[in-house]
Amino acid sequence: MLTASDLTNLQELAGRMADAAGVRALAHFRASRLTADNKAGSGEFDPVTAADREAEGAMRDILAAERPDDGILGEEHGSITGTSGLTWVLDPIDGTRAYISGLPTWGVLIGLDDGDEGRIGIVDQPFTGERFVGINDGDAGRAFLEHKGTRSPISTRPCAQLADATLMTTDTAIFDAGEAVAFNTVSKAAKLTRYGMDCYAYAMVALGQIDLVIETALEAYDIAAPAALVRAAGGRVTNWKGGDCRWGGQVIAAGDARIHQAALDMLAEAAA
Amino acid sequence: MLTASDLTNLQELAGRMADAAGVRALAHFRASRLTADNKAGSGEFDPVTAADREAEGAMRDILAAERPDDGILGEEHGSITGTSGLTWVLDPIDGTRAYISGLPTWGVLIGLDDGDEGRIGIVDQPFTGERFVGINDGDAGRAFLEHKGTRSPISTRPCAQLADATLMTTDTAIFDAGEAVAFNTVSKAAKLTRYGMDCYAYAMVALGQIDLVIETALEAYDIAAPAALVRAAGGRVTNWKGGDCRWGGQVIAAGDARIHQAALDMLAEAAA
Repeated sequence: MLTASDLTNLQELAGRMADAAGVRALAHFRASRLTADNKAGSGEFDPVTAADREAEGAMRDILAAERPDDGILGEEHGSITGTSGLTWVLDPIDGTRAYISGLPTWGVLIGLDDGDEGRIGIVDQPFTGERFVGINDGDAGRAFLEHKGTRSPISTRPCAQLADATLMTTDTAIFDAGEAVAFNTVSKAAKLTRYGMDCYAYAMVALGQIDLVIETALEAYDIAAPAALVRAAGGRVTNWKGGDCRWGGQVIAAGDARIHQAALDMLAEAAA
Repeated sequence: MLTASDLTNLQELAGRMADAAGVRALAHFRASRLTADNKAGSGEFDPVTAADREAEGAMRDILAAERPDDGILGEEHGSITGTSGLTWVLDPIDGTRAYISGLPTWGVLIGLDDGDEGRIGIVDQPFTGERFVGINDGDAGRAFLEHKGTRSPISTRPCAQLADATLMTTDTAIFDAGEAVAFNTVSKAAKLTRYGMDCYAYAMVALGQIDLVIETALEAYDIAAPAALVRAAGGRVTNWKGGDCRWGGQVIAAGDARIHQAALDMLAEAAA
């Protein structure tokens, strides 16, 4: 059982983890010598950089020293099962394709899961200096943006109908045939669809700048932190069946429950 | 005939124009009250904001005071024919869809054309504080990035073959059927394709972070500044026939002449 004080301490710790990861990630960002390994083997282009590994290592060092009993689920260095009931879900650089293309829309993701739900979610963009933080304390979610030394409360925006919604997804190539049909149905109903964002799209939902993110084939480390953030900011994040999506798969994140439901109805046939 | 000293003075002036436009654009960026008019009428979603008009107005005020004989071609406030032989080509907010979605990938575009070629091209991102500047002085192009008080020379990167290239375009929906086939041929040959960027993609070519941008149906104000920037940084920017693209249409911008030619061969059938 995490008290409000526990959560504040853990959030402070998570902030220091984000600082440490951000320094490592920025050190290699736009460096001309940057090379991308091919983690998925030939055929699939899945860049993993030294920055990725160093940034996750820096976060794990902090956890090893200060939270040795917590579990860790990270993209680069595998899983550690903890004994505290808490699990840190880490993606040192979400959006590696944006990262290796020089774009300021990748992020360091830090989630804290208590076994029932995501309690803390951080999306940190070291180049712009933006840190989006969400904390879920029972029904009392709160979220804020730290930028240039100021901390501002943030929340999702109301959006009554899909016709008024801005929708984002990473790339339509992520969808299988059935998913693509379902996604296109939502996209046609929406006002505007934009591509190419990863975690930054969820941050924009939390900030009340866009309304909807729909993705598939996510891993836990892709979604744990963004889902906790959006929920803390007042949004709804589920899988395409309306259930728990903390461990990945098909994901829909909405700033307003009304368009969450409207989109869910359109995605139902392709829900796995 | 512009001397090197003239160019330096005009570049300084363009920098002040970018400053003035950036202040106006940032004042409305992520403002919750932001509304988007529908310039293109019903059906087409083409947001135009107060920020757009104010930012262009601020640039025109400076030109009216200091360069009354120059022509102006702007997105928001139409054209002025000048008598000096020089034309400023202005897009106060390129990437308005990114802008109204809260993303830091829109830009203020300022181009200066001497009737034969683009001499100055600025892509300015006020939120990240990045200013990409290209100057073409005969064969001696030079480009730099101003960021956080430092000015660093930038250049495109070598890329010998499409198999090593990162390609960007705004949205595949911009292409007609024939163009889409041609684009997909290049995309399949490339290592990585990313969507969703506007002027920022050209800035990433100039910075040597990506290799290729392919678009269509551009207006002069979309491409004048980015084309001058990429060329000054060592790249090649033409229409899909290999000819002049300063006034818009189908555009291909490459960091390396070799992949420019390779992509051009694939685009030839759809070249208008």
